[in-house]
Amino acid sequence: MEEKRRLIMLPGPTNVPDRVILAMMKPMINHRGPEFAALLSSVADGLKYVFETKEGVYVLTSSGTGAVECAISNIIDPGDKVIVPVFGFFSERLKETVTRHGGNVIEVPVDWGKAPTAEQIEAAIKKEKNVKLTAVVHNETSTGVTVRDLPQMAELAIENDALLLADSISILGGDHLPIDKWGVDLCVTGAQKCLACPPGLAMISVAKRAWEVIGKKKVKPPFYFDLPSIREHWLRKETPFTPATLLYYALDESLKMIREEGLENRFQRHATCARAFYSGFEALGLKPYAAENVRSNTVVTATLPSAVDVNKVKDIMKERYNIVITGGLGKIRTLIVRIGCMGAVSEPAVLATINSLENTLADLQYPVKIGAGIEAARKIFHSK
Amino acid sequence: MEEKRRLIMLPGPTNVPDRVILAMMKPMINHRGPEFAALLSSVADGLKYVFETKEGVYVLTSSGTGAVECAISNIIDPGDKVIVPVFGFFSERLKETVTRHGGNVIEVPVDWGKAPTAEQIEAAIKKEKNVKLTAVVHNETSTGVTVRDLPQMAELAIENDALLLADSISILGGDHLPIDKWGVDLCVTGAQKCLACPPGLAMISVAKRAWEVIGKKKVKPPFYFDLPSIREHWLRKETPFTPATLLYYALDESLKMIREEGLENRFQRHATCARAFYSGFEALGLKPYAAENVRSNTVVTATLPSAVDVNKVKDIMKERYNIVITGGLGKIRTLIVRIGCMGAVSEPAVLATINSLENTLADLQYPVKIGAGIEAARKIFHSK
Repeated sequence: MEEKRRLIMLPGPTNVPDRVILAMMKPMINHRGPEFAALLSSVADGLKYVFETKEGVYVLTSSGTGAVECAISNIIDPGDKVIVPVFGFFSERLKETVTRHGGNVIEVPVDWGKAPTAEQIEAAIKKEKNVKLTAVVHNETSTGVTVRDLPQMAELAIENDALLLADSISILGGDHLPIDKWGVDLCVTGAQKCLACPPGLAMISVAKRAWEVIGKKKVKPPFYFDLPSIREHWLRKETPFTPATLLYYALDESLKMIREEGLENRFQRHATCARAFYSGFEALGLKPYAAENVRSNTVVTATLPSAVDVNKVKDIMKERYNIVITGGLGKIRTLIVRIGCMGAVSEPAVLATINSLENTLADLQYPVKIGAGIEAARKIFHSK
Repeated sequence: MEEKRRLIMLPGPTNVPDRVILAMMKPMINHRGPEFAALLSSVADGLKYVFETKEGVYVLTSSGTGAVECAISNIIDPGDKVIVPVFGFFSERLKETVTRHGGNVIEVPVDWGKAPTAEQIEAAIKKEKNVKLTAVVHNETSTGVTVRDLPQMAELAIENDALLLADSISILGGDHLPIDKWGVDLCVTGAQKCLACPPGLAMISVAKRAWEVIGKKKVKPPFYFDLPSIREHWLRKETPFTPATLLYYALDESLKMIREEGLENRFQRHATCARAFYSGFEALGLKPYAAENVRSNTVVTATLPSAVDVNKVKDIMKERYNIVITGGLGKIRTLIVRIGCMGAVSEPAVLATINSLENTLADLQYPVKIGAGIEAARKIFHSK
């Protein structure tokens, strides 16, 4: 079965470099032996670099949502107060995960397309007493919004004897997130987003303040997500249960590529590509769904003209131009397109995507000035 | 980094055929699109063949233990009575998982190296009232014991209005396990054992009687392991959360290879290889740790002479002869060697392993008649 190779401009999974895929061409190893121990050590070092932390970062064989549940279930006992700003599909899911583990959700509702602010979180913390955790989706993959106040939210947590959990699944490795400097207590990401790996692994950082709370927890977390056990095994370069070893090789290679590029260069590349996307959208007469000051550098969104059918856009992009993008989620399913600006994203990928979007809109009889989008995007890459 | 290619005779992970590894060399795909839907359908059909069931078999991105926890957490409410025969390291783990989810464990203690019998389970069911579940490790990977009374235990469950869960992680695909015929309500396996795939995926079958119980459950399972949600997504050819797509390609290829070989041929091959191992051990003066009538066809064990150091055996086997086997677990850590007889296992692999074990024992000054082990094993393959 020959699979057609397309440009994957999804908000995850994203294009995986050949180097990363080929790194998986390894013989099986004993995950209780020295080969896996060496692999785990290398991955652990690479993760500390990308998370910008001296604390432990652990790998789970699960999706990113699994790692979010890991964080929640190791912190929250039934009845504990958890502030959750809700401003999209994935923050709804985060709320549901907290509820599932008995947490008392203090919802901070925010319009979709906007981001919660530190002031809103502060007001909620002051109104409620004894908040145990603020759980924030750092980058709302459903709306293309980044919570730019995350450092202030971390400060608020420290001031109010609470913890901060960041679901940074679709942003870590693609934009600034210095865990130790900002003071993020728990941070989660997935392999298949800005780290440009195949899906199947998720990562979680746990700071000292979080370990203190975990140590006092009454109800035990699920066996599969038991952080104290994960840490105990990690210290002897093992995992509690059989890990997806081939995906660890892929992750290790990807982390090497990130170190070769340098974090700052990587963030700059993502930011430039995102600016080019937004500039291209504007030239096509498309408005980003996200408010201007909180637009994401890793997931870009554009509101479609009401006459244009999102499914047709997706299908034409894919079948005619070999580029895979996606539509909205939840209540904005048919209103927007979402494009991943992640991992290996680069000028050719951005220009190809904008160009095809332009052609697709023209194919659908929507009036666009052919060449305007790609020219606007191109200028971003070639201006100082 | 060039990894040395060794013969992996572990009780999982095991050697993965090149066809299966190469099947992962695929471009990324949208896990919410038609390519993944087709892949999932093909995997689902293959799993029904291997599980010998018409019911749904679902794939989780997790280790096998994750899937066991999925089964337990979807069935057990706090206080529910669960019979767990304990006869090794993995049945201890199963007991712990039931306890973690509030289950009231009725332990049936069995000597390590022996298997629980249907009579023992029946006695426990009759003594206790209202048993909700019998949870059995079908093949104790720590001792090399197969529970041969599993079909009778399934009958007992039906007669007593209870369910049967089989942790068949290290046996499914390597020995007889017709789910529908025997009436096993929940059965779990992992990809990296007898299915000869890389680790990272686990599978769970759920029969009608189990769905009825799941529908009446009071406490919700972990979000990541929510079977009703998994089934709902599976019906539309999706998973609730991002799946490890490349590992699905590997699993799909492996399931194709199993259909090409045919289940009966596959079971026969495992049985013959196991007989050859046991015959080889005998010729070397080594006694299997498992009692004769319950010796596994997929994990073979041998008790080492007391003068022989298990770590030295493992190290010499690996470094001098390039064959990876392992020692015991838990209280029998230093007493036995454990060898995987799984997946792609064949005459050359068995003979190479027995031959190297023989040489290793000789290297360690243990008196063996060189050539006796391999000759005894060889005869098994070439006699009628």
